[in-house]
Amino acid sequence: MEKEFSSSLLENAVNALSRLPGIGRKTALRLALHILRRPADEADTLGNAIINLRRGIKYCTICHNISDSETCDICASPGRQHEIVCVVENVKDVVSIENTARFNGLYHVLGGLISPVDGIGPDVLQIDSLVQRVAQGNVAEIILATGATIEADTTNFYIFRRLQAAGTPIKITQLARGVAVGNEIEYTDEATLARSIINRTPFEI
Amino acid sequence: MEKEFSSSLLENAVNALSRLPGIGRKTALRLALHILRRPADEADTLGNAIINLRRGIKYCTICHNISDSETCDICASPGRQHEIVCVVENVKDVVSIENTARFNGLYHVLGGLISPVDGIGPDVLQIDSLVQRVAQGNVAEIILATGATIEADTTNFYIFRRLQAAGTPIKITQLARGVAVGNEIEYTDEATLARSIINRTPFEI
Repeated sequence: MEKEFSSSLLENAVNALSRLPGIGRKTALRLALHILRRPADEADTLGNAIINLRRGIKYCTICHNISDSETCDICASPGRQHEIVCVVENVKDVVSIENTARFNGLYHVLGGLISPVDGIGPDVLQIDSLVQRVAQGNVAEIILATGATIEADTTNFYIFRRLQAAGTPIKITQLARGVAVGNEIEYTDEATLARSIINRTPFEI
Repeated sequence: MEKEFSSSLLENAVNALSRLPGIGRKTALRLALHILRRPADEADTLGNAIINLRRGIKYCTICHNISDSETCDICASPGRQHEIVCVVENVKDVVSIENTARFNGLYHVLGGLISPVDGIGPDVLQIDSLVQRVAQGNVAEIILATGATIEADTTNFYIFRRLQAAGTPIKITQLARGVAVGNEIEYTDEATLARSIINRTPFEI
């Protein structure tokens, strides 16, 4: 590739930044020039944060969430309901659910969803470890919180069957499906509408 | 600020990334999780590229463009027309003009435009050094390529007067103003349209 900039340091930075998802070369150049306008220790902080993130990251041995130690803060917290486990696709979902401040149990991060098209089978996901976690006898309820896609349905069904086969008697629930808050009936698809009628709830003020 | 994530390494990376312009916390988290999915040496490359960019960058002592050495590749190139100097606002403008492959002279990077509202006076810009550069007698033409804004007009006028006062006889030109390529007459503003009539050029095929 021909050298585009008058500085190889700028060239390297733009090349590295434009490898990030959603960042093209124009945006990468804008970011690089912004970094040049800021104090040098701010660039050090950013650079080191990226290097340390990748080099130092650990995964919780219980729930497989990103963690600084062997057991993450959530799994180690005595204030949370350890008998309720919310099964999610990835780390971002944990953040989303934590932000609602309406869930006080633990998590289990699958690390993806079953998707034969993309070559993702159950064995590359943290499903065996979920079954083992349930088999230890301390889990009363599993909430399947994996979205409303075909891959999520497949994964939920597979987990359901595995837990049934293991024979440990636990409650298995899933997130409610219905009209999203703020949406109009007119623009809600029929499948969602049908679900929202079947699963209607008592009127609340 | 409350800790949002289960890992302080992730927290630090998201905080640092979200300081970049146009990157909010959601995007920063997406970038951080992307970095975690990629090999560790890719994170090292990105992190070090950012640190080295800010710590190692130099500015060309002739044109003030970003450079790896005292004199940038453009100013040092024997194949370029050293007597034509294109005056631009910033480093990005050099990249834009270089990408056209239609200019073979040198540059002079002002480092901004005169803007009393933002407290930017002529003295913080590389205008003195431009006047000195012209005074050395090797410049035949100055192209004022600073955009079509009020700040650009002010800056152009100031440079024009300074060069006049210095008395070195040189040609001073500016970028043509007219209908942008791909634009329709209907959507072209009157000031631009007026300019494009006054400065009409011979018909070319």
